[in-house]
Amino acid sequence: MFSQTDFVHMERALALAVRGLYTTDPNPRVGCVLVKDGAVIGEGFTQPAGQDHAEIQALKHARSRGHDVRGATAYVTLEPCSHFGRTPPCANALIEAKVARVIAAMEDPNPQVSGRGLAMLRDAGIEVRCGLLANEARELNIGFVSRMTRNRPWVRMKIAASLDGRTGLPSGESQWITGDAARADGHAWRARASAILTGIGTVKEDNPRMTVRAVDTPRQPKRVLIDSRLDVSPDAQILVGAPTLVFCSSLDERAAERADALRARGAELVALGNEHGKVDLPAMLAELARRGVNELHVEAGYKLNGSLLREGCVDELLIYVAPSLLGTDALGMIDLAAPASLDARTRLTFHSVDRVGDDLRILARFAAANAAR
Amino acid sequence: MFSQTDFVHMERALALAVRGLYTTDPNPRVGCVLVKDGAVIGEGFTQPAGQDHAEIQALKHARSRGHDVRGATAYVTLEPCSHFGRTPPCANALIEAKVARVIAAMEDPNPQVSGRGLAMLRDAGIEVRCGLLANEARELNIGFVSRMTRNRPWVRMKIAASLDGRTGLPSGESQWITGDAARADGHAWRARASAILTGIGTVKEDNPRMTVRAVDTPRQPKRVLIDSRLDVSPDAQILVGAPTLVFCSSLDERAAERADALRARGAELVALGNEHGKVDLPAMLAELARRGVNELHVEAGYKLNGSLLREGCVDELLIYVAPSLLGTDALGMIDLAAPASLDARTRLTFHSVDRVGDDLRILARFAAANAAR
Repeated sequence: MFSQTDFVHMERALALAVRGLYTTDPNPRVGCVLVKDGAVIGEGFTQPAGQDHAEIQALKHARSRGHDVRGATAYVTLEPCSHFGRTPPCANALIEAKVARVIAAMEDPNPQVSGRGLAMLRDAGIEVRCGLLANEARELNIGFVSRMTRNRPWVRMKIAASLDGRTGLPSGESQWITGDAARADGHAWRARASAILTGIGTVKEDNPRMTVRAVDTPRQPKRVLIDSRLDVSPDAQILVGAPTLVFCSSLDERAAERADALRARGAELVALGNEHGKVDLPAMLAELARRGVNELHVEAGYKLNGSLLREGCVDELLIYVAPSLLGTDALGMIDLAAPASLDARTRLTFHSVDRVGDDLRILARFAAANAAR
Repeated sequence: MFSQTDFVHMERALALAVRGLYTTDPNPRVGCVLVKDGAVIGEGFTQPAGQDHAEIQALKHARSRGHDVRGATAYVTLEPCSHFGRTPPCANALIEAKVARVIAAMEDPNPQVSGRGLAMLRDAGIEVRCGLLANEARELNIGFVSRMTRNRPWVRMKIAASLDGRTGLPSGESQWITGDAARADGHAWRARASAILTGIGTVKEDNPRMTVRAVDTPRQPKRVLIDSRLDVSPDAQILVGAPTLVFCSSLDERAAERADALRARGAELVALGNEHGKVDLPAMLAELARRGVNELHVEAGYKLNGSLLREGCVDELLIYVAPSLLGTDALGMIDLAAPASLDARTRLTFHSVDRVGDDLRILARFAAANAAR
């Protein structure tokens, strides 16, 4: 159905899409290549929200170089949009440009609009094919797909551990188990996330900034703190700079003073308590999706990691494994009770395994998340 | 110093050497390629102990095909031996064959004879070069090198663990955390070892045979059991078949009856106690080296793993990591206390990381072992 040439152009479109990895949020990362008479005449990728989508960029690029786009083939990594958002629909632009063919990697994941953009193109007489390198395109927008299809972000939990699965000494000392390269790589994963989530335990112990510093990015992810009782100090680093979103269990009168102090530091407080007086984690994910969070990057401690996992709020583990042993009494990765039998154990699949400096990076997906994807 | 052609032939010699991986023990795995006028005229690899070494095989192979070996170049993965063992020295055979050149990957690791074979060849007017693909050759005979240079085997500890570093449930259930492919791969590592070591705890819990079954091999490794008080049942699987070597702390009168029962099952008992009434593990390694053990494959439990590690008796970890989580209260890999600070942690380096079926195989070396190698 697709030719070798089609693959080459779609791979290029995917490579272009990756250039928006840190910046398109909350929009998906999309790339577009315009090909005419066998030659690439225009290329584009989605610009920051409110600016041009990939297709518009590619059309402008082709025209700026004096090319006539009529009759061209457009390779796009996602079905062109069919609705007026902050920008006019790209399907319209392609129709007006009189391209002859559109090859899309995947349909729009939003079940409400999926296929509409392609239908508009077909109705206008454009030849349309879909499904080329769909897996790759889906991976690239795994968070956007998750938000559109599940109304929750794709949740990636980052953990740095020793070879024996420990994250710190009994004293709490945990900086640094992994090396410089792993830390920089971790920042790249932060940078692509819509938001970075941590818990009050980590804030009290390490007072982290939870910003992207080791890689260049024009956009800092939103910072999210889970702090049931609003215990965070107004002086905590996580409140410095852009407004941090703090989820607590309730905002009653007893919390009023603490809440005011945090708001004075720019924090936005959201009360979402469950019956145990803790933050309702699934409800929190829904709220984050409502706010446009595609990929949620979690860097928390043993306890919150366990709560998120037990409540089914984690899709994949991003584990940096250091070549060292910390010992049995050192801290574990996740507060999780052993199952009654091995058959009942929590199963994942290894998605990728790579060496990063002296460490390993393992991306492992929960079986359930994999099925949902 | 070496040409591209030299590399090609030495790589072939290494590939031949690998064919003796399960069988040359306690001799090193060696391969030999004879090249004359640019063509390979003979190939060989070390046969089971007492039979032909690689060089002899290659000379016979060349002659059996009607080739005149005079003036040929011999590529050997280890310096030709210079002493009469169970077979005459290979250096003599090469001299008598009137080869023109010998290219060796590495010198004999035995400091007592290192370089003598090459010197004999040079004295006979043969052009000799050494050091081509030396690392690869050394890896292939890592156990032989260890025995020759350190008077102890290369100790490889195999562990199957979950992603959170656990080896079994609190109930002791541990079969099977990893999949079929990992189990078969584990048997291949058993097959190349001179001996397989386990402890009385594992024997009592799992009653393993500790034989090679999942891969074809004409030679079963020696089985070694650490059992300080001779608690092993005479009916234990580990005693079935070939004689098993049992290390205990003492063979005094109180143990006489149990000892007799075990000897009746074919076991050989060796008393090597330390001041704590346990088996003296470093002394055990020396004894195993004395008996010709090159690679020692350890498959033991939490406690013995810890003892071996704490006493510096482990060179590398062979860890199969399953994509699952077992929880904090599940069994740890190694009975090891956390260090006082992260700076004092036990460090390793990742030697190789591979996917094996649904699992990961990680080979990690202790920094100290790496330095000694």
